[in-house]
Amino acid sequence: METVTFVLFGATGDLAKRKIYPALYNLFLEQKLPKCFHVIGLGRRELSDEVFQAGVEQSVTQFSRRKANDPVSLKSFVHAFRYQALDIGRKEDYTKLLQRIEQRERELNLTPNRMFYLSVGPEFFAAIATNIKESGLGSAAGWKRLLIEKPFGHDLQSARELNRQLSEAFSEQEIFRIDHYLGKPMVQKLGALQQNNPVLDALWTNRYIANVQITANETVGVEERAGYYDRAGAVRDMFQNHMLQLLMMVAIHLPKNSTPEEVRLKKKKVMEDLVPLHKQDIASHVIRGQYAAGTIQGKSVPGYTSEPNISEASLNDTFIAAKLQIDAPFWRGVPFYIRTGKRLKEKSTRIVVEFKEPLKQQASAQEEKPMPNLLVFEMSPHEGITLQLNTRDPQHQGAFKPIHIDFHSNHQDLPEAYENLLYDALLGKPTFFAHWDEVELSWQWVEPILQAFGDQLVPLHPYPAGTYGPAESDALLAKDGYHWWFDSECSSEIQLKGEQYAYHSNH
Amino acid sequence: METVTFVLFGATGDLAKRKIYPALYNLFLEQKLPKCFHVIGLGRRELSDEVFQAGVEQSVTQFSRRKANDPVSLKSFVHAFRYQALDIGRKEDYTKLLQRIEQRERELNLTPNRMFYLSVGPEFFAAIATNIKESGLGSAAGWKRLLIEKPFGHDLQSARELNRQLSEAFSEQEIFRIDHYLGKPMVQKLGALQQNNPVLDALWTNRYIANVQITANETVGVEERAGYYDRAGAVRDMFQNHMLQLLMMVAIHLPKNSTPEEVRLKKKKVMEDLVPLHKQDIASHVIRGQYAAGTIQGKSVPGYTSEPNISEASLNDTFIAAKLQIDAPFWRGVPFYIRTGKRLKEKSTRIVVEFKEPLKQQASAQEEKPMPNLLVFEMSPHEGITLQLNTRDPQHQGAFKPIHIDFHSNHQDLPEAYENLLYDALLGKPTFFAHWDEVELSWQWVEPILQAFGDQLVPLHPYPAGTYGPAESDALLAKDGYHWWFDSECSSEIQLKGEQYAYHSNH
Repeated sequence: METVTFVLFGATGDLAKRKIYPALYNLFLEQKLPKCFHVIGLGRRELSDEVFQAGVEQSVTQFSRRKANDPVSLKSFVHAFRYQALDIGRKEDYTKLLQRIEQRERELNLTPNRMFYLSVGPEFFAAIATNIKESGLGSAAGWKRLLIEKPFGHDLQSARELNRQLSEAFSEQEIFRIDHYLGKPMVQKLGALQQNNPVLDALWTNRYIANVQITANETVGVEERAGYYDRAGAVRDMFQNHMLQLLMMVAIHLPKNSTPEEVRLKKKKVMEDLVPLHKQDIASHVIRGQYAAGTIQGKSVPGYTSEPNISEASLNDTFIAAKLQIDAPFWRGVPFYIRTGKRLKEKSTRIVVEFKEPLKQQASAQEEKPMPNLLVFEMSPHEGITLQLNTRDPQHQGAFKPIHIDFHSNHQDLPEAYENLLYDALLGKPTFFAHWDEVELSWQWVEPILQAFGDQLVPLHPYPAGTYGPAESDALLAKDGYHWWFDSECSSEIQLKGEQYAYHSNH
Repeated sequence: METVTFVLFGATGDLAKRKIYPALYNLFLEQKLPKCFHVIGLGRRELSDEVFQAGVEQSVTQFSRRKANDPVSLKSFVHAFRYQALDIGRKEDYTKLLQRIEQRERELNLTPNRMFYLSVGPEFFAAIATNIKESGLGSAAGWKRLLIEKPFGHDLQSARELNRQLSEAFSEQEIFRIDHYLGKPMVQKLGALQQNNPVLDALWTNRYIANVQITANETVGVEERAGYYDRAGAVRDMFQNHMLQLLMMVAIHLPKNSTPEEVRLKKKKVMEDLVPLHKQDIASHVIRGQYAAGTIQGKSVPGYTSEPNISEASLNDTFIAAKLQIDAPFWRGVPFYIRTGKRLKEKSTRIVVEFKEPLKQQASAQEEKPMPNLLVFEMSPHEGITLQLNTRDPQHQGAFKPIHIDFHSNHQDLPEAYENLLYDALLGKPTFFAHWDEVELSWQWVEPILQAFGDQLVPLHPYPAGTYGPAESDALLAKDGYHWWFDSECSSEIQLKGEQYAYHSNH
């Protein structure tokens, strides 16, 4: 792994403390950092290196998944951190930063590879990129990389404008757009699972698959991000990025040992094949919801429009469910249902692949029917894979009995998404980052939804907090003869193991 | 369920004590016996009903999987048992038995349905059947059924002769041939699994399946059955019956809701399609082994020819491995490897379905390869289903990592084979009993093996007790590029759950 100077904008911010420092620390413990790794943290405030290092140490102690039991190793880790105050708009500060970096590179005898992580609001991305270019920070003999995190624009036009600005300072190959869902271990395994398992590969087609359900349910409400969220809504905050990335990851058919370039082209192809919705189609394909007051896990919570800093008249979407179709040979006729929302009954991110019933069984509609086969990829709260099969119990009048055969990862051994992503960025591996093509095509696909929502062409359905969203979300699937899987009191049963148990669904 | 008189020959024998009474007791607890169920036990000795009932009670207390905690219910159970002394060869005893049964039928006001369970040596089957007929025991207005257990003959000719004799007293529909492997819950589920799961049905063909491995390994030696076993060998004791039944159960393709008659015809078809081996082919398709002294689980055990009542010169087989082929559209080109033996390293009965690697991967032989996909049905020591998939670990240089997704039954809830079988016999359901066609075709297929063994055309390979049999058994698969799965120190790992773990095989 090549040496690098890790330049962190927003070094005193929340993301840095909760995610970036703990992730770097875990990579450090696993010896997955370059030998001469060092960090220059940037923030508006003046801080000494020592105070900054103490802050890093505290964040690791508080948030690392591995406990920082060894004070010597923790000291040696934070010793790699330096701090410099920087006003994003002041060019002189970038010049000073350049001098500091060059000095450290000389001291440490480093190739001047520089990774710029912009852990700041998106409104600063363009200014920082420009200043990196103009100050000469990006002109060293080594490589340079830019790490940014969503939102990448507010709509298609603003995303294009942002990208135009960034691309004046960084080439596409130098830009690593973080979508932290792509850092989740189970998401990273999706392609490999289909690619390296003939039994899955054989089944990965519309010949056997009835529908695919992609769910990312949250129990939290708007939290402290009212200003941003009320302008973004579920459609921009989750759907345009995370949800469409999950769709791409589950729908790609990868040949063995695909190069990152091949993965990228296949993902792009999925987005290109996604049947576009026109503004007038949105109401029949997309369900828009907003949470009302309700109860989650025994606790009363207010409705969205009663949240601090949210207008009582807000028509913002906190829930979205949609039916998508991919016009490609493998997927023609297979609906992809996507839903995500806040203040739902339980937190879970999962993909359910529902298989078709065999033709011979569809013929006899009156008889007792087995459950469909399901293949479930769970990303959270626990990582796992479950296959639902049917058996008959010969000793109970031959009744059908679904069984779950499952695999669960050892939770403690799982790297956090940011560990995976930072490691890949340090190696320059772009596979699990969002390419501009994907971002642009996603915005393009979502644009009619934004317009239809803006023009109030789609009803905003209230749903009580602590439910699974508006009833219209269930109706969206019921029209096609399906239902969302695992919406129930008993949905946690899918994680039960080592015994037979009855299966419960909400239907 | 119809009332019945259960007439048990060999009522003081070991099988009755260890299996039949405990099985009946568990059916009794589950209310799966007819309302007016009663038993007449027969044995050579004179015993009072009370002494006999005390023996039944003791056997239940000692061997039932459910503890007999409720003395009232246990008393009520054993109250259904009566005893009568009977000399198998004395016709007067059958007349007395008839009088006793008719008296009980009158007392209890029962339809004269009679189930005759011959828990005695096979040399007595014909005589008992004849006497049942001649005494009028089998001529009542109700139905009659005969339950017998292997061995059904010693070879094709003697099996045919036995069947001829039995069929003078009982029709084929009245004969329930117990193969207790067919009573095992996982064996009973095999057909239902393939039939009711589109994902398995889609894969159940030579397009995806590379080979099937059927293993029944025992750790015990010849035990107390030296006289019988030294004449039978593994080929007659296990292969001709249990192993070929497992083969039929895994290879049948059943339509939905098959009738018992359809199941029977499909099983027969498997046997008819089994490519016959000629005497001169046996040496290249069948491995014959005999255990030598060795160590099992730390304990030294003697070789077969040093066992009590076994001749030092015995050439009997205690191990057999064979390669079979089914000449049918679904199975052409898929070898079925079968092995069974005594004094092996560990006790296990399982079927492993090994899937093909995809064509695109076979092309690049030099590269790191994923493991094949496996679907494993475990019958013992634990019941379970495991699917072996490959994933890649993106954080470890993308190395392949096999994962096991599995299902394990709750051991305590599982009925014993004899419970399932007695219940079906009481209901008159023949599906999980061996039909004469199957028995005859099995003997016919095995006949050239018996001849080749008898003529010493096949080398007898010694293997140390505590191993997996002779090396030639491994070579049988290695010739085709395969190996036996899960032969290792770590084979128990397949039962580990809830965590990722390295996979070990013996290759």
